[in-house]
Amino acid sequence: MTETRNGADIGVYGLGTMGAALALNFAESGFSVAVCNREADWVAPFIESAGPLADRLTGAETLEAFVDAITRPRNILFMIPSGAPIDAMIDAITPLLDDGDTLIDGGNADFNDTRRRSAAMEGTGIHFVGMGVSGGAEGARHGPSMMVGGSDHSWQHLRPMVEAIAARFEGDPCVAHLGPDGAGHFVKTVHNGIEYADMQLIAEVYGYQRDVLGLPAPQIGAQFAQWQDGPLASYLVEVTAAVLAKTDAATGLPTVEVIFDQAGQKGTGRWTVIEALKLGQSASAIEAAVGARGWSSEKDTRVMAEPLLPSGRQDAAVVSAEDLEMALLAGRIIAHAQGFRLLWAASAEFGWALDMARICEIWRAGCIIRSALLGDFVAAFRAELPADHLILAPSLRGRLDEAIPALRRVLGAGVAQGAPMPALSASLAWYDTMRTARGTANLIQAQRDFFGAHGFRRTDKAGNFHGDWDRDDTPA
Amino acid sequence: MTETRNGADIGVYGLGTMGAALALNFAESGFSVAVCNREADWVAPFIESAGPLADRLTGAETLEAFVDAITRPRNILFMIPSGAPIDAMIDAITPLLDDGDTLIDGGNADFNDTRRRSAAMEGTGIHFVGMGVSGGAEGARHGPSMMVGGSDHSWQHLRPMVEAIAARFEGDPCVAHLGPDGAGHFVKTVHNGIEYADMQLIAEVYGYQRDVLGLPAPQIGAQFAQWQDGPLASYLVEVTAAVLAKTDAATGLPTVEVIFDQAGQKGTGRWTVIEALKLGQSASAIEAAVGARGWSSEKDTRVMAEPLLPSGRQDAAVVSAEDLEMALLAGRIIAHAQGFRLLWAASAEFGWALDMARICEIWRAGCIIRSALLGDFVAAFRAELPADHLILAPSLRGRLDEAIPALRRVLGAGVAQGAPMPALSASLAWYDTMRTARGTANLIQAQRDFFGAHGFRRTDKAGNFHGDWDRDDTPA
Repeated sequence: MTETRNGADIGVYGLGTMGAALALNFAESGFSVAVCNREADWVAPFIESAGPLADRLTGAETLEAFVDAITRPRNILFMIPSGAPIDAMIDAITPLLDDGDTLIDGGNADFNDTRRRSAAMEGTGIHFVGMGVSGGAEGARHGPSMMVGGSDHSWQHLRPMVEAIAARFEGDPCVAHLGPDGAGHFVKTVHNGIEYADMQLIAEVYGYQRDVLGLPAPQIGAQFAQWQDGPLASYLVEVTAAVLAKTDAATGLPTVEVIFDQAGQKGTGRWTVIEALKLGQSASAIEAAVGARGWSSEKDTRVMAEPLLPSGRQDAAVVSAEDLEMALLAGRIIAHAQGFRLLWAASAEFGWALDMARICEIWRAGCIIRSALLGDFVAAFRAELPADHLILAPSLRGRLDEAIPALRRVLGAGVAQGAPMPALSASLAWYDTMRTARGTANLIQAQRDFFGAHGFRRTDKAGNFHGDWDRDDTPA
Repeated sequence: MTETRNGADIGVYGLGTMGAALALNFAESGFSVAVCNREADWVAPFIESAGPLADRLTGAETLEAFVDAITRPRNILFMIPSGAPIDAMIDAITPLLDDGDTLIDGGNADFNDTRRRSAAMEGTGIHFVGMGVSGGAEGARHGPSMMVGGSDHSWQHLRPMVEAIAARFEGDPCVAHLGPDGAGHFVKTVHNGIEYADMQLIAEVYGYQRDVLGLPAPQIGAQFAQWQDGPLASYLVEVTAAVLAKTDAATGLPTVEVIFDQAGQKGTGRWTVIEALKLGQSASAIEAAVGARGWSSEKDTRVMAEPLLPSGRQDAAVVSAEDLEMALLAGRIIAHAQGFRLLWAASAEFGWALDMARICEIWRAGCIIRSALLGDFVAAFRAELPADHLILAPSLRGRLDEAIPALRRVLGAGVAQGAPMPALSASLAWYDTMRTARGTANLIQAQRDFFGAHGFRRTDKAGNFHGDWDRDDTPA
């Protein structure tokens, strides 16, 4: 293996939207970057299009040339599709590497894969980092939020570079080493799950205004723009205001009116929900958002169903704009609380010791769910948090004091008038469950003992008991 | 391998509650049964306790003796814990078997394991059957509902025996060969998921009566007993009435009042939800029920949270007993519709060609979710079903006509008054989503295109489009 001197500071493999943007971001931040791509003929045009940054870019047409062009210990970032392509790439490149080199998967990988790959690399001298990158193409180019999982060795070498390209919140770079192996990709997955929930909550508040209040899109957009000045201030509310304000050139209609109501999904939302369930958690607001995307794809069924199914709609008091704002805030707090609860469970399960306050900090700029609320969460996690539950933080309870009654009014109206509110209702159902000391699972335990002899605990003494049920033991 | 003459018709391995009950059921139905158990010293006492049925039982203390005692081609039923014990047992017994023998796993196996085991057995001459058994210990002893997945060969040999021991609904045995490999265990898993949802729906209606109406347990039990005479007639409503009527001898309180409100779960509910998500489905009523069981286990947090969290409760009109009855009916219809939608998706994915009407038929007796409603479902599936969606069947739309307005009133009251209703609200949210031809996913697609350039479809022409968004491209 040739040792390179004055080689590139980092290699970026994969020149799709995200990889190209990150390579340019590294170059603009003063680093020299080796670039390579499966289709080798993408390399030269990419460098040509880089303008003055081209001087800091070294193109390589083969994997060997790419590896040789990077200073040791090497940092090599893959921005390619997750799954099998990453495994194939690891197999191909590993024989070319040296002790102390680090491979970084910057895609939306399943954290279970990242854990497996990290374990496979253990003891080989090569390090593996799973890094979640949020912010879309714009973020990647000008400042993403990055969630890093891997060894201290890798972090030490990677840190100056990722801190240089990261988004900054009041000067603080939005990147952190969150833990070993899959910690970074897991946190990114939950980030995306919360993103799903927040988008769905916004869509429900939009739907109520459109379908029950009968407001046109620009007026709803103006409402979101106004909320951007209050506690809902966030990138997603800003985006919502912007898209609702837009007119479609071809038809003169609001652009959202000509967009087909069938949403895609790429897997991270679903993964969040599945991993939550495996950890014995149920992130119900995220579940509802994943469900809503799936149901949106059943467009033909919905069109067929509308005239067939009874609506049973009822009158209800019209809710105010302030109530809608506060209901959305309640939903957002609850969706985050569920997401952090899941991070807490994963951290305990995998021994990651995740720093929740730091996670909130690196989400305050660069990423899709950046919001004013994250500042409150930082403070809540830095202070003492009862039972590790975000909703129990004194500052958030103060917000919920105003927001929960509004959520009840909005949801009451939606329930009566037939406006679908899966995420808002899942949020309230969880909230009401968690603030009820004495729930109804006693009945479920009684039923389970009746038909399955599962036994139950008693409120007044320790042990496992069975009821003396009057069973009808004749054949059913 | 010695060929046995006049040997046992079937072998049952595993003499726990379910295995012992099934062995006695086979014996009572006239079959000779070889029995064996990991702890060999359970065998003799079991036979001694069998009374007059002992004549039809042959005890075996070793696996060799057990196999030798069964007539070829052998039917060998395992009633042991699922997972690793089944794999170990297959490894141990397979060398002792002959061509044409069938191994049957009667436990609550993960259908993925059953598919794997079936595939491993392919071409060996040995057959593998995954059979879901519902009905608890009483069902196993006097007539369970059984869902069989496996080869035609196995079914041919097994059929007379399982039909003889099955529960009967108007003479029709509640057992069927539903498809190959994992079909039976998958259907059993979804059965259990629906069971979770139904129990949770009942618990929510109980909770409203207890906590909002302030009714004592026996009075709520009397209400359930009355509903047992109407469209809610079912085993679970009967069980609910029975347990609510019961007084605890030690305290003189209603038994449910002394039961700790922390519910256990054994995995099948969670599996249902995870498999649904993997298939792109979201069975939200089942998700809510699984969530509620998980949240019930966070008892310490709930006790701490109750005095801390604002309730924001509001006044609401008291709902009638008729509304509660109809709301529960609506939830039950919807939970089943979601379960069958999931069966439909799995059937398509795995090529099982599941007969939904037959599944309803074999659930009408013996199993935990047996109910009057299943008769309506049989008719709905036998008739033409629009879009394969149970809620679109004309007969069920008639029921929903009355039940949906009641569900809106009950949920509206629960939402206002702070009674947690996760499953009822998940049911309505899905219903309202599915009967809305034009949903709100257009906004989500606009957002995704704005920040991720995902593109969207238009309502007025084919293709993938991008919005001409006014993005602020400065660093975030």
